[in-house]
Amino acid sequence: MISDQDFEARYVNALFDGTAFPEASAGNAFSANRLVRNSEHLGAEDLARAWRNPHALIHLFHNGDPVLRTDASGAVAAFTLQQTAKLNYDAAAGIYLGDRDGVPYLAATIVSSDDLPAPYTTLDMRSLVITGSVAAEDVASIAHGWSLLSWHANNRFCAHCGQACEKTQAGYRRQCPACEREHFPRLDPVSIMLVVDGSNCLLGRQPRFQPGMYSCLAGFIEPGETLENAVRREVMEEAAIEISAVRYHSTQPWPFPHTLMIGCFAKAESTAITMDAAELEDCRWFSREEVGAMLTGSGELKTPPPMAIAHQLIRAYYDLSG
Amino acid sequence: MISDQDFEARYVNALFDGTAFPEASAGNAFSANRLVRNSEHLGAEDLARAWRNPHALIHLFHNGDPVLRTDASGAVAAFTLQQTAKLNYDAAAGIYLGDRDGVPYLAATIVSSDDLPAPYTTLDMRSLVITGSVAAEDVASIAHGWSLLSWHANNRFCAHCGQACEKTQAGYRRQCPACEREHFPRLDPVSIMLVVDGSNCLLGRQPRFQPGMYSCLAGFIEPGETLENAVRREVMEEAAIEISAVRYHSTQPWPFPHTLMIGCFAKAESTAITMDAAELEDCRWFSREEVGAMLTGSGELKTPPPMAIAHQLIRAYYDLSG
Repeated sequence: MISDQDFEARYVNALFDGTAFPEASAGNAFSANRLVRNSEHLGAEDLARAWRNPHALIHLFHNGDPVLRTDASGAVAAFTLQQTAKLNYDAAAGIYLGDRDGVPYLAATIVSSDDLPAPYTTLDMRSLVITGSVAAEDVASIAHGWSLLSWHANNRFCAHCGQACEKTQAGYRRQCPACEREHFPRLDPVSIMLVVDGSNCLLGRQPRFQPGMYSCLAGFIEPGETLENAVRREVMEEAAIEISAVRYHSTQPWPFPHTLMIGCFAKAESTAITMDAAELEDCRWFSREEVGAMLTGSGELKTPPPMAIAHQLIRAYYDLSG
Repeated sequence: MISDQDFEARYVNALFDGTAFPEASAGNAFSANRLVRNSEHLGAEDLARAWRNPHALIHLFHNGDPVLRTDASGAVAAFTLQQTAKLNYDAAAGIYLGDRDGVPYLAATIVSSDDLPAPYTTLDMRSLVITGSVAAEDVASIAHGWSLLSWHANNRFCAHCGQACEKTQAGYRRQCPACEREHFPRLDPVSIMLVVDGSNCLLGRQPRFQPGMYSCLAGFIEPGETLENAVRREVMEEAAIEISAVRYHSTQPWPFPHTLMIGCFAKAESTAITMDAAELEDCRWFSREEVGAMLTGSGELKTPPPMAIAHQLIRAYYDLSG
């Protein structure tokens, strides 16, 4: 009989090997969500109670972007209901996201597409992260709110029978009054991978990218495949590179509109690229030196900004060899 | 300037640390899918060509279960079109899944719910795995086919506008002729976790489980959270146990109907359980000895069978300390 200490040393450390370091997911944008949801057990009464709570805070969206109020003390993106009394938002379609430090957080959409009255403005979510104008935990709950509001807006009808369906569970479900089918919020898992071959890594560019930007390959995971097989399939389809080992790095909730990015490293077993020209306009190997210059964004070529998990994957590869 | 060998030893090994072993996902049921999809670029012509190919093989489903043909040489679950000429299946709603060794694989549903003519029978997918009557790679492509067919059957209408929508891209998309919205197959990411505290692990049972069965906690990942935060939330909601480190173990495509199970180990930082009685009827700590007996299935208490990723997580925890 071995001691509990020995037992723990022998297998618990093995199970959690590598996790003594801060988890990589925590370094990704939109990951700092502190809302306590309890969405399984929320109902219309909880939603109504949140709306009546004078301490409740609300995230608002206007033409697809978060609403900010900027004054001398900085930018704010979570408002009391009193502060937003003059804004015309659709409270009936609003969602109770959860609680932070006991304060209920709500999300709703401005009804009119007209400009907002001062001091209210909007800032797109990418810029919200890049400028750092709002705290990371607010950015995360804004992203959370937008993923759910987008899902409701794009799923007003029951995909099973075609009738109009209704928001239930404070915004965490929809249900069809005709066929009674319950619909869960959609979350699309996407694999995104940095392919590594010795000291080189593989990056591609899509025609829609900013000039000079190269990024990791990526694609939706499909039914009937593991994460690792999805990574291999995606790299084969886009670049015809064979992959052996795949290693999970981190995840990122990505609110465009409701994606779960799953970042991996993928070990190349071949180097000759056959690019999928329907997806990419270029795809090639980059040396560590090239990537180092691209991460700073100072040269002609660049990686995506730090808010993107692709940047974090490339940064981790670069730093590990520093 | 260090050599390429030194360079690789310094960082490539670090990136892929732990992946020198066979990846855990490959040990999960439904993971052995060898179909080459190329779904991005499939169209109606590819589907029609597959149906005309005399070598094409088809997976059929009857009342939700895969169709088998059993004769002296064993069970078969992929048929030539000639073999299935007398079966009344809905070819118009059929899907071109992809190719295996150059042979196109199709999937379709039997129209009538009446019994099938001999030698055709059905076997539910769980039993198909447990009995081992069909090769693992067939089981995986059957699961793949069922996830897509279920999605089509449950998404006949456009969730955006309520009109009937249509299968496109050989079955890998739907599109609405009214609003032109494109719909992608749904894949729901679920986190499933074995919570470990020293030499004990946490298992729960839902009322719907077989008598004596205990399993890992699990739940849908929601918009606005990382995998690791989803694991912490789920364990907090179901058992009120605090989690520190979370470590990715493996994924499993789960065809009931289209879920991506993401298995993790989660390190407990507290031990007092407050169970969510709406979800679970019991939840408690198990010693390694208890779990060892449960894995064999010989006693009163048991784990899920090896086809479930929960079993694989529990098995990995048990084996690591063996």
